[in-house]
Amino acid sequence: MHRYRTHNCAALRSQDVGSTVKLSGWIHSKRDHGGLLFIDLRDHFGITQIVIPANSPLMNTAERLRVESVICITGKVVAREGETVNPKLPTGQIEIQAENLEIISEADVLPFQVTGNENYPEDLRLKYRYIDLRRERVHRNLMLRSNIIASLRHRMIKQGFTEFQTPILTASSPEGARDFLVPARLHPGKFYALPQAPQQFKQLAMVAGFDRYFQIAPCFRDEAARADRSPGEFYQLDFEMSFVTQEDVFETLEPVMEGIFKEFAPTHTVSSAPFERIPYKQAMKEYGSDKPDLRNPLKLVDVSEAFKNSSFGLFAKIVEAGGEVRAVPAPGAGSFPRSFFDKLNKWAREEKAGGLGYIIFEDNGAKGPIAKNLDEERCEMIRQACHLKSGDAVFFVAGQGPDMVKFSGSVRTKIATELDLIEKNAFRFCWIVDFPMYEINEETGLIDFSHNPFSMPQGGLEALINKNPLEINAYQYDIVCNGIELSSGAIRNHRPDIMIKAFEIAGYPEEEVEKRFGGMLNAFRYGAPPHGGAAPGIDRMVMLLMDEPNIREVILFPLNQQGEDLMMEAPAPISAERLKELSLAISVPKVAVKKSNETVETDKK
Amino acid sequence: MHRYRTHNCAALRSQDVGSTVKLSGWIHSKRDHGGLLFIDLRDHFGITQIVIPANSPLMNTAERLRVESVICITGKVVAREGETVNPKLPTGQIEIQAENLEIISEADVLPFQVTGNENYPEDLRLKYRYIDLRRERVHRNLMLRSNIIASLRHRMIKQGFTEFQTPILTASSPEGARDFLVPARLHPGKFYALPQAPQQFKQLAMVAGFDRYFQIAPCFRDEAARADRSPGEFYQLDFEMSFVTQEDVFETLEPVMEGIFKEFAPTHTVSSAPFERIPYKQAMKEYGSDKPDLRNPLKLVDVSEAFKNSSFGLFAKIVEAGGEVRAVPAPGAGSFPRSFFDKLNKWAREEKAGGLGYIIFEDNGAKGPIAKNLDEERCEMIRQACHLKSGDAVFFVAGQGPDMVKFSGSVRTKIATELDLIEKNAFRFCWIVDFPMYEINEETGLIDFSHNPFSMPQGGLEALINKNPLEINAYQYDIVCNGIELSSGAIRNHRPDIMIKAFEIAGYPEEEVEKRFGGMLNAFRYGAPPHGGAAPGIDRMVMLLMDEPNIREVILFPLNQQGEDLMMEAPAPISAERLKELSLAISVPKVAVKKSNETVETDKK
Repeated sequence: MHRYRTHNCAALRSQDVGSTVKLSGWIHSKRDHGGLLFIDLRDHFGITQIVIPANSPLMNTAERLRVESVICITGKVVAREGETVNPKLPTGQIEIQAENLEIISEADVLPFQVTGNENYPEDLRLKYRYIDLRRERVHRNLMLRSNIIASLRHRMIKQGFTEFQTPILTASSPEGARDFLVPARLHPGKFYALPQAPQQFKQLAMVAGFDRYFQIAPCFRDEAARADRSPGEFYQLDFEMSFVTQEDVFETLEPVMEGIFKEFAPTHTVSSAPFERIPYKQAMKEYGSDKPDLRNPLKLVDVSEAFKNSSFGLFAKIVEAGGEVRAVPAPGAGSFPRSFFDKLNKWAREEKAGGLGYIIFEDNGAKGPIAKNLDEERCEMIRQACHLKSGDAVFFVAGQGPDMVKFSGSVRTKIATELDLIEKNAFRFCWIVDFPMYEINEETGLIDFSHNPFSMPQGGLEALINKNPLEINAYQYDIVCNGIELSSGAIRNHRPDIMIKAFEIAGYPEEEVEKRFGGMLNAFRYGAPPHGGAAPGIDRMVMLLMDEPNIREVILFPLNQQGEDLMMEAPAPISAERLKELSLAISVPKVAVKKSNETVETDKK
Repeated sequence: MHRYRTHNCAALRSQDVGSTVKLSGWIHSKRDHGGLLFIDLRDHFGITQIVIPANSPLMNTAERLRVESVICITGKVVAREGETVNPKLPTGQIEIQAENLEIISEADVLPFQVTGNENYPEDLRLKYRYIDLRRERVHRNLMLRSNIIASLRHRMIKQGFTEFQTPILTASSPEGARDFLVPARLHPGKFYALPQAPQQFKQLAMVAGFDRYFQIAPCFRDEAARADRSPGEFYQLDFEMSFVTQEDVFETLEPVMEGIFKEFAPTHTVSSAPFERIPYKQAMKEYGSDKPDLRNPLKLVDVSEAFKNSSFGLFAKIVEAGGEVRAVPAPGAGSFPRSFFDKLNKWAREEKAGGLGYIIFEDNGAKGPIAKNLDEERCEMIRQACHLKSGDAVFFVAGQGPDMVKFSGSVRTKIATELDLIEKNAFRFCWIVDFPMYEINEETGLIDFSHNPFSMPQGGLEALINKNPLEINAYQYDIVCNGIELSSGAIRNHRPDIMIKAFEIAGYPEEEVEKRFGGMLNAFRYGAPPHGGAAPGIDRMVMLLMDEPNIREVILFPLNQQGEDLMMEAPAPISAERLKELSLAISVPKVAVKKSNETVETDKK
């Protein structure tokens, strides 16, 4: 018989009745019942009920032990009878009549309970994460996360990708966020940086000819924590492909995403490939966002024409000034009481909008404050444009510029939520494409890059030379699920001549481009394939799949929002000796410096 | 037809003759032949021959382009005839009659050649790693590495393990080497450390109840580079299991190692599980090493008895003083000329030994300088102890302590190498077990831990209380392949009471243990399972499998031996602004600080 167990705690069934078995695990719970002691013994796999008979010599020990102590039980499998059968447990048909009990590890009084669903303060949970992780929800979350990542790997390999590890000690990269830095002891005054993303390395892997790279890549940004972003490190499904067009990238990622979401959300409807491709401009027009939630069936409608030169002066003036009036259809809302419209108007004011005008369509025509000031034909024009019928309503957002667009998106979400129109148990994917290459920098009034300066402009060098920069789109895209951007991506600019021209348009002279991005430019001068990719965030995918709003619920040992590991006590002061070794001095006064010179061995390669 | 390719450069065969195809790739080589221009077009998958007909309008362009330029070729597949068939290439039956050639990326003059096997200076190769990686050997190495890792993952999952990501920004750990440190911007004067290994996290994962953890884990040590160790980061197959004995760990890892080595070294003989288990003391006695190379059939024999009180005074005195004489059998060496023995004697002196005595066994008795001074019976005793026959010889190492043991191991290797006895094309695994828990610290003369203080002592608390500490073994083991230690590992001490006692024996009072290792001790106070594991080095496995002596040949983008990334130019100075943000000052004079404030976007989650 094995030293610790013949079976795990989820293995035994009716057919095992009569056999002598050994189980090890944690005391999940104990209860006295008619002189018997029942122990729910828990391990990673499940729970099995142990019975200590009333007259057993084990009783004293068993009674004394606290929950979460680890014990090893030997005993006979017996059938439960009648009402004692527990149909909710896979092992609910049997229990173990304990014949021996070995204490493997006695538990102290716990800082919080493993059983039950009580909420405990996050800092307490993180300090004792090893206890917190025994709780059912977070234990299941972490197992699912691991299974999702294993399945992602499998699916990427099936698509012809090879996983490569890119360096973690590397150079500061010209990305949006702040790097974590690592002092280089052997190079005083110099620092490595932890990668914000393996962007340059994956492009260089393409230049090296590896054709299809992927990595479940650790990424590091020294940024403030958000609900959906850890303060320190996070993982992305980083991938890149050579000799591909944008469509190839889409067709390659789609089965992976569709497959993963169908596998891990079997109760949900998932978009089938091909996912809808929505040009950026259309997304901003129809959804008021470049991250549209397609579970929301509403689309915004430009009804400026209906208000142009109309007697509804407020909107007419806005249209005249070059602004726009957007309609948000509200099917079925026509029968709602006045209080519904007042409530939305109040909400709009809280959102710093002037209010939320509306029209109600009834059998005998359009109603409401705006309809009063708008002739019938114009109301009818709006009704038709919005595909509405009697009993429906429509709301209006008027204005111009990004604020108006953003607010129109908010209204779309608000109305759909109020009308309960958002599809449930669904994951709806889309690609946003045709992002503009350039935009006017609002501060300087000059032309600047809109997104990624390293994306290939549509039309290539010719477009850069001949077209109005503001009309050039890039091969730049986002993949969005349920209104959440999982990743941006692009077909990269692999041509130094096109890159220099692209930067020239944004006001960067060639010398500066060479100085700042010489590394990549040079790599492209020795034969570079066209290539592109993306990097969906793993943590976000896992959060979506598990419907967890807090990223720390899906990470094994997360930092807290202040970037501290409360369990391991990091970050921590270092010794003066270590500082000196690194040629550094702390430049804030009164810093606690504690001595620490422990050196003991553990597993090593 | 696809924008870039209908097939890759390894796909086309005779049955494709007649079809029009499109291929993209690098110009691997060009040659003129009878007015035609032949191009070997290369991509990740292989090479296809392109023919530019003599009168083709493409000829000028094709002639002008340098090798490593990337082109896209459209043309007809035609059969090669007679001698032009290349049986060495999978595509050698066909070639492409070029009808169109598009330049995708023109290559400059290369810093070194992709073709051929010439050796270039390593720093040049690393600076242009993206070109170096196109070379056949290193390209193949990296693909194999990726495939090995994918297979390891698959095999570990099949064994019931789940992969978890442990933190990279964490606390300084009490391991043997120096940590890399990361200043915590939001916590002035405090630092994160990069993990030397996820040792504590994997143990905490066991305490959290995850049963079987593994990770292809990035590890970081701020140590000098060695041929088999990168200066910065490396990967290990980190794993840990709960409710297991040492034998369970062995039985779990063995099929993984045997499977991987059989899969990736099909031309080699690989040890079948169970691998030999060799107690530490036996290994030191029979192999003079705790990392024995079992491809070497020789075993050391203790022949002290034969020299005790003998007339060979030198050895007799050594034995009398408590030393030992070890015999290294040299089967077949009896017929070698005197110069062979002289050469070995010279080698021994270079190794700082006194020399290398020997006996030759001939039909008419033992010969050689030692035999002259040793009576016949004693010579016969040695012959029998070493299982030698006429025509064989034996060498002797005499002395005491670690130097003698180490030198006996060197002689064993040397003799087997000279006699060409080392098994070829084989991977021979063994486990070294029963490492002593304690040893006498040679400097202090006091009892100290031999290896890992966190390993479970054999016999548990009782052994610690009742046994001579120097006679206690630990559940501590190494896995060794061909004389290379792939990993140490252990059954951990999961009991605070045993840990405190174990440290007490090594001279650490309880308060100090609590202070230094309180984190782990506390975790063990809330119910900890018995657990153990190991962490075979991935890079070492890959080096063994590919027979590459230099670790940088099996890493995609390695640092050089000075810890520099010559391609990305890391480490690098940082701006004064960044330093201030981190509450740091450089404390060496005259450090170049360059301004760098680039912020542009790339793929982000």
